[in-house]
Amino acid sequence: MKNQNKILLGHGSGGRLSHRLLSDIFLKHFQDDELAKLNDAAKLDFPGNSLVFSTDSYVVDPIFFPGGDIGKIAVCGTVNDVAMMGARPLYLSSGFIIEEGFHFSDLEMILQSMADAADEAGVALVTGDTKVVPRGAADKIFINTAGVGSSLEGVNLSGHNAKVGDLIIINGEIADHGVTIMAKREGLELEVDLKSDAAPLNVMIQDILHKIPGIHVMRDPTRGGVATTLNEIAIQSAVGINIVEENLPVSSQVNSVCEILGLDPLYIANEGKVLIFTPAAYVDDLMSIMANHPYGEKSCVIGEVTAEPQGKVILKTSIGGSRLIDMLTGEQLPRIC
Amino acid sequence: MKNQNKILLGHGSGGRLSHRLLSDIFLKHFQDDELAKLNDAAKLDFPGNSLVFSTDSYVVDPIFFPGGDIGKIAVCGTVNDVAMMGARPLYLSSGFIIEEGFHFSDLEMILQSMADAADEAGVALVTGDTKVVPRGAADKIFINTAGVGSSLEGVNLSGHNAKVGDLIIINGEIADHGVTIMAKREGLELEVDLKSDAAPLNVMIQDILHKIPGIHVMRDPTRGGVATTLNEIAIQSAVGINIVEENLPVSSQVNSVCEILGLDPLYIANEGKVLIFTPAAYVDDLMSIMANHPYGEKSCVIGEVTAEPQGKVILKTSIGGSRLIDMLTGEQLPRIC
Repeated sequence: MKNQNKILLGHGSGGRLSHRLLSDIFLKHFQDDELAKLNDAAKLDFPGNSLVFSTDSYVVDPIFFPGGDIGKIAVCGTVNDVAMMGARPLYLSSGFIIEEGFHFSDLEMILQSMADAADEAGVALVTGDTKVVPRGAADKIFINTAGVGSSLEGVNLSGHNAKVGDLIIINGEIADHGVTIMAKREGLELEVDLKSDAAPLNVMIQDILHKIPGIHVMRDPTRGGVATTLNEIAIQSAVGINIVEENLPVSSQVNSVCEILGLDPLYIANEGKVLIFTPAAYVDDLMSIMANHPYGEKSCVIGEVTAEPQGKVILKTSIGGSRLIDMLTGEQLPRIC
Repeated sequence: MKNQNKILLGHGSGGRLSHRLLSDIFLKHFQDDELAKLNDAAKLDFPGNSLVFSTDSYVVDPIFFPGGDIGKIAVCGTVNDVAMMGARPLYLSSGFIIEEGFHFSDLEMILQSMADAADEAGVALVTGDTKVVPRGAADKIFINTAGVGSSLEGVNLSGHNAKVGDLIIINGEIADHGVTIMAKREGLELEVDLKSDAAPLNVMIQDILHKIPGIHVMRDPTRGGVATTLNEIAIQSAVGINIVEENLPVSSQVNSVCEILGLDPLYIANEGKVLIFTPAAYVDDLMSIMANHPYGEKSCVIGEVTAEPQGKVILKTSIGGSRLIDMLTGEQLPRIC
């Protein structure tokens, strides 16, 4: 039967085919006692009295790309959002919306990516849901994940906490994810090696917060890129932000693609990056902690927090000028994550 | 500008338009301190040391129907799943996937429904995410919600806990939701008054569990209907289930539509129904508690748990026969929730 390799509407019916999909496919990739109970919700131990809760839906197109796929970013993105609010991510839910006719082989690759990323991050996928919609009602597959974490004691991270004098650090080169997606989508035949930076950052982040609980802000510059995330924080904290163009890490490959396509790396989405706002006194310790983690080896200081202009981000250019860096206006790359 | 009334790709960019959408539209409907901080995750007080976590994606078509809309079921469905595992629902996340060109006025109606349902259920929408996909990449709007609740002490509900001798209760007439969606979708001109039963059941459920913590199973018979849910529980608990056809509550309106369309109400989705498996000793107390709640006034006993046949559901028909009731096979009504 040619349909055996494809998702049918019946796989989203809640009936027999849904149960087979769960038992034969999902449970093969996700070994979790609560998930295996096949209840409509998971009952879980929770340490502490403060939790962090986050969600994102993932609609990236293409669903497979160098450095990852929609499953990998669905796990890493939500894990990172929970970690960056000062929590240890523990549990993930996932909700799949799948187009009728989607190939099982693609679904299995995505589920394996999710399982691998969850393993690396040390989180358990404990509850989920699958809907199947008729052909044309959704494009291939969309995945939502929500994450629950246990707050770390003595840590208080928020976009509102940036203080004048804070230094701003990023854990490596920017724009890799967005440029990779863009190049793949446009079918660009590039002689450069591009790869998404998708990665779970929670292990590094917890190590940092354990040793330096006084960090002020952590946030991942995903949609809208570094420029938009810094603007958000400048507004939330009512401070100015200065960044130094020549300190911004951009790989030569990404730089060439951006030049060809007329893109500004500051506005391009990242997946495995974190912006850290720290009191200057901690910066040496922070840099040496980060240097010991695979996702932090290329960390560098890119700017600082100033009193003025409130709510604005200023770029000090390589040629000695200053330029106001606004939030992303309009849409640069739809379905980037 | 004609586009001012419609969602643009830029509203999902993470940039300026996304921020306006959040500040001007979402925060108008959802008054929550954590949500208003506009961080990527919410930090929340959590009582107890055991949590219940659930998620569902909602893809119902049409998005507006008698008795509710996609927003109402997105809140009620997840609230109910958390409640039926023996927890007090506290927090919801929501992830929106919106098709470019979707009308703001429709979005606002949906958000208001969500806010109303969350108010009635006593839960807070604390974190969210919005993606916009190009025209044709999704049909109108899909909503995922995830819910976190605090487990009630001394309660142990699971599909695995049905015991021989348990009585099975439902809180009112079945198949209202599915038949309403079907009739609306097919444009049936019916001279009957159909309405979805979508409702948050958590207040009634907590009242029951507070007074009768020894209930064995609660589950909502959504996709696949009562027949499929009972089959799931029969399998999970390795018991037989007998239901009595003449005790099954079906409204005369739903009955007539099912006859016209050749549908079996046992397989049709509900949204505001709960199947409760209780030791027979508690049944009088349970019925009188339920009678005091607006969503429990029509509660009735529909069957019982037997030793054999294990994993099967048997319907005792009105004419004195017995019929094996299987899980839903194939798909009866795609995009029912």
